[in-house]
Amino acid sequence: MLNFDFYNPTRIFFGKDRLDSIDKFVPADATVLITYGGGSAVKSGLIDKVKTVLGNRKVYEFGGIEPNPRYETLVKAVEIVRKENIDFLLAVGGGSVIDGTKFITLASSYQGDSRDLLKYGFTPITSEVVGNKVVPIGTVLTLPATGSEMNSGAVISYEHGKFPVMSPLTFPKFSILDPTITFTLPKIQVANGVIDTFVHTTEQYLTYPVDAKLQDRIAEGILQTLIEISETTIAEPENYDARANLVWSATVALNGIVGAGVPQDWAVHMIGHELTALFGIDHGQTLAIVLPALLEVRREQKRAKLLQYAERVWHIDSGSQDEKIDAAIQKTREFFESLGVKTRLSQYGVGADRIPVIVEQLKAHGLTALSETQDLTLDISQKILERAL
Amino acid sequence: MLNFDFYNPTRIFFGKDRLDSIDKFVPADATVLITYGGGSAVKSGLIDKVKTVLGNRKVYEFGGIEPNPRYETLVKAVEIVRKENIDFLLAVGGGSVIDGTKFITLASSYQGDSRDLLKYGFTPITSEVVGNKVVPIGTVLTLPATGSEMNSGAVISYEHGKFPVMSPLTFPKFSILDPTITFTLPKIQVANGVIDTFVHTTEQYLTYPVDAKLQDRIAEGILQTLIEISETTIAEPENYDARANLVWSATVALNGIVGAGVPQDWAVHMIGHELTALFGIDHGQTLAIVLPALLEVRREQKRAKLLQYAERVWHIDSGSQDEKIDAAIQKTREFFESLGVKTRLSQYGVGADRIPVIVEQLKAHGLTALSETQDLTLDISQKILERAL
Repeated sequence: MLNFDFYNPTRIFFGKDRLDSIDKFVPADATVLITYGGGSAVKSGLIDKVKTVLGNRKVYEFGGIEPNPRYETLVKAVEIVRKENIDFLLAVGGGSVIDGTKFITLASSYQGDSRDLLKYGFTPITSEVVGNKVVPIGTVLTLPATGSEMNSGAVISYEHGKFPVMSPLTFPKFSILDPTITFTLPKIQVANGVIDTFVHTTEQYLTYPVDAKLQDRIAEGILQTLIEISETTIAEPENYDARANLVWSATVALNGIVGAGVPQDWAVHMIGHELTALFGIDHGQTLAIVLPALLEVRREQKRAKLLQYAERVWHIDSGSQDEKIDAAIQKTREFFESLGVKTRLSQYGVGADRIPVIVEQLKAHGLTALSETQDLTLDISQKILERAL
Repeated sequence: MLNFDFYNPTRIFFGKDRLDSIDKFVPADATVLITYGGGSAVKSGLIDKVKTVLGNRKVYEFGGIEPNPRYETLVKAVEIVRKENIDFLLAVGGGSVIDGTKFITLASSYQGDSRDLLKYGFTPITSEVVGNKVVPIGTVLTLPATGSEMNSGAVISYEHGKFPVMSPLTFPKFSILDPTITFTLPKIQVANGVIDTFVHTTEQYLTYPVDAKLQDRIAEGILQTLIEISETTIAEPENYDARANLVWSATVALNGIVGAGVPQDWAVHMIGHELTALFGIDHGQTLAIVLPALLEVRREQKRAKLLQYAERVWHIDSGSQDEKIDAAIQKTREFFESLGVKTRLSQYGVGADRIPVIVEQLKAHGLTALSETQDLTLDISQKILERAL
């Protein structure tokens, strides 16, 4: 097991009818900015319910945070935070709204050009950069997928790039996870959420073994849970327990417990981000495209864990090592396709001729040494993309 | 899945050579009281190492916190905290030292007779009782077992009782979990730690099903990990990975993640506490005595989860339901015995004639409606004790 630090101070209020917790954990005299996305949270009446719970607090609203939240959008909210002396940010939405709100709080406290904050990558942004006092965040989750509701990371889009932004200052103070709020989601968003959760887990599990037995079991537990509930939660959106298992799995997959003391890859996400930035393919879909291809190309580096994955997650216990690995990768692809998500670049209209453009973007963003062993170079990314056609 | 709240702000520094974290997270101007137990932390040189890291800070020491820490001992430390204006408590020890230190911080802030704090049971003691400012705690763990290093609970002994004390104010600010520090533990203490971790997990798992799939998988993951590593970590105390898996399993078993959204039993612990209080049997040993007997007596209430336990943890997949359950209970008993721990009351010199005394103590402590369904009455406790002979 590798040495690790673990810290996660976010309060979780999970279950039916938990909005009342807002009243308890947003200071009574706070001026609140509610952030949200494309308007479904308004139409469903959720924003009104949240405002009712906020009662007499002074409330502002900032809607229109898009999927893959854009820097240009978020800086408009920063102006409101500063002008209206906002002292609590309440994000009502999925990962994009929550990620965007994390950036809003950091940028509101930062004295310089807030595009600087996009340059830190996986290096945490500390109070030395943005000062000791950032506006606290609470969240009401509407889409189980990114885990942003219980971690300190965000991904922000700017020009043709997606930029990770990490800061211990952006852990939400609380997050409300009410599975019933997610019942009205379109099926495709639920499917993408399943895939996002699945791949968050494999990025922290399908690496090389370090004898971290419990972390492996937890990762396998999330993957098995997703396999068990995904068909039900997509076909029967109001099946409470199936959806509750998806919501909690999505949160736990990226709250630090799976990745504590183990190597982490994240190459699938990094390559996937370029596909979203260049071609507008949904985040979950990009992961479904890249993961099976990457596992095929990186089977030697990942052999031991791929065999464990085949046996424990897919219960494949006959055949040669390579037959087991082939079967596990095939099962993974079939699982994504069973959710209605295509797993080939060409099915999204991206042909072999575009691969050099993708590789060029990876190079432009410095993504030339990816993976748990930092040896996934551009030529290997190219091979992965060719396998993904 | 049941509704739940989850909150755990303790920072974990896990791995080799992590004592330096103390310098980072104990304020530079703090007056520190180091608390410890019977002296092994002094003899091993650990206390000296901790003092070296504390550098120029003013440091006091309070040793002699016994296993099953006693109220009468802890109030002496309270006097030091008050007299010397201690503003950081650093517990160097196992669950007893950490539990005791949690009580010390609460009692130091409480204005009345601190025995009052023993009366709250599982009701959390809030700032309304002890004030807003309690002395913060950090821990250096020396024994993997109780999980106290990453939760807000304690068990304090007073007269002939063991009293749970819960307070969100007592989460350690940080805990250092260095498996190498535990290498010198006596084998019996490691065995007891394995059993304590095992039973913490079953108390939150072997109840009735609520379709909390991920929580079940995590519980099963801890149990499977313990079964895999216990023989090695007892026979080869310096096998780093085996010990690291035990240490992390013990912490995760009781940091809230296993019990989130599921029913909880805790009857094994409650009955076990009486055995410790009356006969001085080690905590881990009492659990090894009570769990198998309780599972036999409560097999109808726990049938569904016992079958899941048999199949997923012990891989028992043939036979009738009752044969599977019998085999799983037998495997559990054999597992405890394989660690060198006896599982029968009579093996500890406690005969049938003492059962009425134990039942009387359960009654005296109000433990007349135990378990996940609050219907484990005194007559059932008696049956369990009879089965445990």
